Amino acid sequence: MTPATRRQEDGLTMAEQLIGAIEAGGTKFVVALARADGTVLARERIPTETPATCFPALAAFFGQASAAHGPIAAFGVASFGPIDIDPASPGYGTFTTTPKPGWSGARFHDVLGRFGAPIVVDTDVNGAALGEWQAGAGQGCRTLAYTTVGTGVGTGVLRDGKSLMGFSHFESGHIPVPHDRTADPYAGFCPYHHDCLEGLAAGPAIKGRWGQSLSELGSPSDKVELIAGYVAQLAVSLVLLHMPDRLIFGGGVMKTPGLIPALRKATEARLAGYIKAPQLDPGLERYIVGPGLGDDAGITGAIALGRQALG
Amino acid sequence: MTPATRRQEDGLTMAEQLIGAIEAGGTKFVVALARADGTVLARERIPTETPATCFPALAAFFGQASAAHGPIAAFGVASFGPIDIDPASPGYGTFTTTPKPGWSGARFHDVLGRFGAPIVVDTDVNGAALGEWQAGAGQGCRTLAYTTVGTGVGTGVLRDGKSLMGFSHFESGHIPVPHDRTADPYAGFCPYHHDCLEGLAAGPAIKGRWGQSLSELGSPSDKVELIAGYVAQLAVSLVLLHMPDRLIFGGGVMKTPGLIPALRKATEARLAGYIKAPQLDPGLERYIVGPGLGDDAGITGAIALGRQALG
Repeated sequence: MTPATRRQEDGLTMAEQLIGAIEAGGTKFVVALARADGTVLARERIPTETPATCFPALAAFFGQASAAHGPIAAFGVASFGPIDIDPASPGYGTFTTTPKPGWSGARFHDVLGRFGAPIVVDTDVNGAALGEWQAGAGQGCRTLAYTTVGTGVGTGVLRDGKSLMGFSHFESGHIPVPHDRTADPYAGFCPYHHDCLEGLAAGPAIKGRWGQSLSELGSPSDKVELIAGYVAQLAVSLVLLHMPDRLIFGGGVMKTPGLIPALRKATEARLAGYIKAPQLDPGLERYIVGPGLGDDAGITGAIALGRQALG
Repeated sequence: MTPATRRQEDGLTMAEQLIGAIEAGGTKFVVALARADGTVLARERIPTETPATCFPALAAFFGQASAAHGPIAAFGVASFGPIDIDPASPGYGTFTTTPKPGWSGARFHDVLGRFGAPIVVDTDVNGAALGEWQAGAGQGCRTLAYTTVGTGVGTGVLRDGKSLMGFSHFESGHIPVPHDRTADPYAGFCPYHHDCLEGLAAGPAIKGRWGQSLSELGSPSDKVELIAGYVAQLAVSLVLLHMPDRLIFGGGVMKTPGLIPALRKATEARLAGYIKAPQLDPGLERYIVGPGLGDDAGITGAIALGRQALG
């Protein structure tokens, strides 16, 4: 039975259909049962731990929520990775080579399949991008890039509300960046590349270099500008290789006071007037922005992913 | 009358329909009348010069070719830029801010509109990517990146045979690259960024630095490796931000003996084993390749662009 026929039989409008939404993060899952119009009916946090503990808790939550509110028409999952997000792949929804114990080979369909509803799985950043596109700072953008700078760095790019991918999801955190070892002797923490963007600018790099977060340090402008300079390399690469209508930067590091303005300045300096477009004027103020949904972008995106499966 | 109805009236199969194809380069245009199956019926070179000389020559060529072979069902144009390639834009097919005298504001529709056939306009690199995808080294790739390193540097990316774009076409030539001024004191020739990728690695940078092309210099391995290292920055960025199934590198500079193998080596070193996918094994030999169509990629792509307009 397709979602459309089920809806007809139940006499529900599309907005009234129920979506099971999962924002799957490295330390916790946020799970929700929501109506397709976005109204959240039930919500819970589940520790990520291992699939052996997490998956039964997921099944229990959705089982109880569905018993209370009705059958689930579709699931939307916005997940940490690396994970197979190609709907045409036999491994769709399966974690691939994550170092997180127990998660390699775990598949969302194994726990959600019992509900008999279609399952849409995408990355956490693609989900956040979708949430911001539908209800936040990315509304009206045909091409939108959402980047998180937190424990790691990642970017999701949408075109007309659909996330882009190649043979896998993007891995923007590992782009090479110029690293002046005199100005910044920190070697970087990436186990593969040492001083790639993530190795120099993610949260662990900041704590590894200075012992505290930028906010705890009082957001000193020289340190904020150093990190902004690294992140600007990604901003410039995103402009030149995707030409998005807007760049949203979220994640814990980006909450540092002054970091977004410093990122605008560093990005503008590197673009050096080469790209002329109304989107970029004036001073990238409307071009490089923080998330409009704050910490709700992920679960909003997961609900939106589920909505994509409704007929 | 749509191409489909015209075809029915003329009793032609789709493969027999006629396509007007234009590969518009900075010094010359290659124009062809071809059947949709790719058979070229007439072909000519026209100097780019200015639209005042070039456009009448285009009209004359297609007028004569059409008189000899039949009505033109669609036009495909693969052009130098910057040019508006957004079919939804009122300026679709119009050159924007090119420094080439006379070309800013020129529009392909102004000269081709008289033939009453649909016109598909894309960039030269997107056209070459499409040609390689249909008949060359990119066959079977869901995501394909075609980069030219010649007078300039540019990249077209296809997903399922459609070129990607944001608010404009991509501008991969201007990505920032680490530049060790001790090892390479050349300042770069880009008027905007000096030592961006194009400023350090395109043909004019090579001649500006060493007085001759790499091939003329006898392809010395240290110089080949220096240029390969810069181009590898783009290869790595394309992998991380597009995850293509294959990277094709064409253009005059890439014909340097030994450059493609050096590019594979430099790219593999920078990726450092982080991306694991069968496409990349072994040693990027099937991943980073030269064009399969040689200098015919552009006009083959233009024909393929025209074919996209056939109903």
